[in-house]
Amino acid sequence: MKRVMLIVAYDGTNYHGWQMQPNAVTIEQILNEKLSELLKEDIQVIGASRTDAGVHAEGNVAVFDTNTSIPGEKISYALNHLLPEDIVIQESFEVEPDFHPRKCDSIKTYQYRILNRNFNLPVKGRNAYHFYRKLDLDKMREAAAYFVGKHDFKNFCSSHTQAKSTIRIIYSFDIEEEDEEIVLTVSGNGFLYNMVRMLTGTLLDVGTGRMSPDKIPELLAAKERVHSPNTAPARGLTLLDIEYL
Amino acid sequence: MKRVMLIVAYDGTNYHGWQMQPNAVTIEQILNEKLSELLKEDIQVIGASRTDAGVHAEGNVAVFDTNTSIPGEKISYALNHLLPEDIVIQESFEVEPDFHPRKCDSIKTYQYRILNRNFNLPVKGRNAYHFYRKLDLDKMREAAAYFVGKHDFKNFCSSHTQAKSTIRIIYSFDIEEEDEEIVLTVSGNGFLYNMVRMLTGTLLDVGTGRMSPDKIPELLAAKERVHSPNTAPARGLTLLDIEYL
Repeated sequence: MKRVMLIVAYDGTNYHGWQMQPNAVTIEQILNEKLSELLKEDIQVIGASRTDAGVHAEGNVAVFDTNTSIPGEKISYALNHLLPEDIVIQESFEVEPDFHPRKCDSIKTYQYRILNRNFNLPVKGRNAYHFYRKLDLDKMREAAAYFVGKHDFKNFCSSHTQAKSTIRIIYSFDIEEEDEEIVLTVSGNGFLYNMVRMLTGTLLDVGTGRMSPDKIPELLAAKERVHSPNTAPARGLTLLDIEYL
Repeated sequence: MKRVMLIVAYDGTNYHGWQMQPNAVTIEQILNEKLSELLKEDIQVIGASRTDAGVHAEGNVAVFDTNTSIPGEKISYALNHLLPEDIVIQESFEVEPDFHPRKCDSIKTYQYRILNRNFNLPVKGRNAYHFYRKLDLDKMREAAAYFVGKHDFKNFCSSHTQAKSTIRIIYSFDIEEEDEEIVLTVSGNGFLYNMVRMLTGTLLDVGTGRMSPDKIPELLAAKERVHSPNTAPARGLTLLDIEYL
């Protein structure tokens, strides 16, 4: 018996997110089906990040146990032949039998893309939120800087979060312009349910002038849940990378 | 009666190209249907560039005649409400009644994206050719420079071309690296059937070392059709822009 890690990239457009659920096609389900078919065993993956419906990934992580004699690093090639075109394994290799992708410390990096122009562009709009109002990037950067550090993010996550603690550390939050796209890249030790999309929704409010950047430290310091930010659409979000420490 | 120009962007993945044909959904057909529905007239667009199945556009051009009282520049907004998400009008405005998008002189710019890494990335792979072999960009740039200028491109187009002359002018041919993507941008006064995809196929042969850059001037000077280059896949190609002179 060995434990194998997969680095998984996908276009989330046609999936109901990562996690298995009745009557909907998910990434986890496809991986379980295709791995079971390939290895002739009943395979159940454990995922690192249960991305929402429509969210994309370049580097989500999953592990599974198998008795196969196929070497870990060959599984990616064989599995990619069975997978649909919108899910591609980037790498596979053996890990310690007790490695758990959600219980080990990691740095997760997400990217949120905003297509900031009058009309949407169909190809780019598949992985970007089309937002036509003008945005003040300096103000957005000022606000994003307040998020960096160890904070209680209870005002920046869904009220449906099941986490025991809403304290998280954000290591960096960069905002870059690439032609007509504004690209937000945020790294942290973990993110609450809908947190990246709500941080983005907040920064969009700052960018349009609806909210002042000075409001952010106030909301981070608040003892109670006093704010429910807009949740930016799933399509703009990509899980770029998970680095285990 | 007025003539209106549309700047049309589309994700070509789900279409059998621009031009109307039986038993297949095309961009031209969708535009005719939705314009006729919007304007309550029988509308037939004339397109500038009949892109192939799977080719994308940010700025293809079409014109049509209409008796509508809707101002030209408002048609884009109204039409976008009726169009599927993968076709978006970028601009609409009135032009001279005798303006013909294929008969007036123009500079066309195409982009070809190559995703040059071991495994494909699903989101980016929708608008890029995944090519895993290492490419020598310096050699590709040397070869591309030979294409710039006025040449007979009979050895770099499909034998099914219906053009009377195979002489075309290429104004520029740039090759840039963006992370793991190699982006070819070519501007010219016109392109023969499959020409951009065959120029790209040739440059890929140069990049892998299968062909020397010095072979290009020889093929451009050849009096006969002596060469049939590989045709790079449609998915990597985007018609960026058509500038009328």
